[in-house]
Amino acid sequence: MGQPSQRAKAESLRALHHAPHALVLVNIWDVASALVVQQAGFRAIATSSSAVSSSLGYPDGERISADEMLAAVERIARRLAVPLTADMEAGYVREPEQLADLVGRLIAAGAVGLNLEDGTDPATGTLVPLAEATERVRIVREAADGAGIPIVINARTDVRLDRAPDSEDDLGEAIARLRAYRDAGADCLFPIGARKSATIAVLIRELSCPINILAGVGAPSVHELETMGVARISLGGAPQRATLGTLVRIATEMREAGTYHSLEDALTHHELEELTAAAPR
Amino acid sequence: MGQPSQRAKAESLRALHHAPHALVLVNIWDVASALVVQQAGFRAIATSSSAVSSSLGYPDGERISADEMLAAVERIARRLAVPLTADMEAGYVREPEQLADLVGRLIAAGAVGLNLEDGTDPATGTLVPLAEATERVRIVREAADGAGIPIVINARTDVRLDRAPDSEDDLGEAIARLRAYRDAGADCLFPIGARKSATIAVLIRELSCPINILAGVGAPSVHELETMGVARISLGGAPQRATLGTLVRIATEMREAGTYHSLEDALTHHELEELTAAAPR
Repeated sequence: MGQPSQRAKAESLRALHHAPHALVLVNIWDVASALVVQQAGFRAIATSSSAVSSSLGYPDGERISADEMLAAVERIARRLAVPLTADMEAGYVREPEQLADLVGRLIAAGAVGLNLEDGTDPATGTLVPLAEATERVRIVREAADGAGIPIVINARTDVRLDRAPDSEDDLGEAIARLRAYRDAGADCLFPIGARKSATIAVLIRELSCPINILAGVGAPSVHELETMGVARISLGGAPQRATLGTLVRIATEMREAGTYHSLEDALTHHELEELTAAAPR
Repeated sequence: MGQPSQRAKAESLRALHHAPHALVLVNIWDVASALVVQQAGFRAIATSSSAVSSSLGYPDGERISADEMLAAVERIARRLAVPLTADMEAGYVREPEQLADLVGRLIAAGAVGLNLEDGTDPATGTLVPLAEATERVRIVREAADGAGIPIVINARTDVRLDRAPDSEDDLGEAIARLRAYRDAGADCLFPIGARKSATIAVLIRELSCPINILAGVGAPSVHELETMGVARISLGGAPQRATLGTLVRIATEMREAGTYHSLEDALTHHELEELTAAAPR
């Protein structure tokens, strides 16, 4: 049985999926970024697997090991007051027993939620067969509940809803998969490519379950998504990529002009020290 | 004896301190930030200890362990083509044998340079006594040369040259300390608080050795520093704190407006993937 405080965090994270306002997640990649977002008033923190991976030197798509990903999750979780949900890609392991073990390690790392996706290869778009993907959601549900920490499962389908030509077939497959994940114990359903209002409306109507939309430039606003009934809104790897855009501008200015304007809106050393010094250790 | 390629990197980093142009360092904190700066055309990469520490959840000032700092250095060094110099604060260890061991571990991690400072407590401004601080520079020099990797020592004094009231006394003490470190084998001397042109001119005249100036908002430009004869210009923790400033703006916009303008200048997912996929592993 886990700590009551971790159980309470899991319940708190679940409740945020059923609140009057959408759960908004500004995804992070390390402790400093997590503390900045928590300080900005967000009620939960989510990792982005692509952002954590690139921070540690790996391309996206399970090129990082489960060990390194879990070590990053633990570093972040132990410094936060609010619930942390971890993007665990397709779970990093293939065998059912390994997956149950991974859930135990994720709980030990301090997370109270996870993203679990059914894509196995971003290059080819290959999906785990439906029956197996559904069984994996069930294994996670049972392992977490058995450990006494009812972690929030955000089950993602990698059916490409942003692929134009055959989008109606894709939408049907996404709905079938997400319903199966819901019935296997997922708390929230994440159709990764869904951005068009019409598509999102169909998904909400057909799924009867909180859904997660990946927002960002070109997507409907938080207010519009909330009005449509979206329960959870996340940004994926974009926040980290935006901060790296700032670093490109700093480096370019240093190389070309040799001046420091792009450093002007930095946090102060004192502000960053306050964030890290106040965090539990 | 180390790999010839690591020895060549150390020699290349040293040569950059004696080149027609100053060595400009945009300090980084993780692999993604290192790859961004390398891609921008910089000829060497430097960590910032405060940035690495906050990324991993610690305040500045040796609150991180040597093990965690070296693990971060290794993650970064093994992915870079250009030389990496690591900010190792005051060395993390007190005993001479431990310091020699640390140099071996730093070389094993792939670094070819280090910052070694004589401050032990940022809160009180306490300095290591001059004789001991000088001996520590000598230990690092001998350990590195004995290992066959002539790493570049950037010896920093924490005498506060930005402290107004008694600045002439401070300047005298800084010069005495930096001369001692130079004679003990340092390759570059780093008076941390020196920003005024007059102070920098005196230091260059009195030290007869490459000097490192911490630049940033309010400091003379790269061109002005080069013209004065500064050999090495770094930015410390400011690049990371500027990127975290971007994250504050993203989080604030998401909370207040629910829109995505502050994500518009992000690196693309493809650009970040290219950076991490191309790096050696």
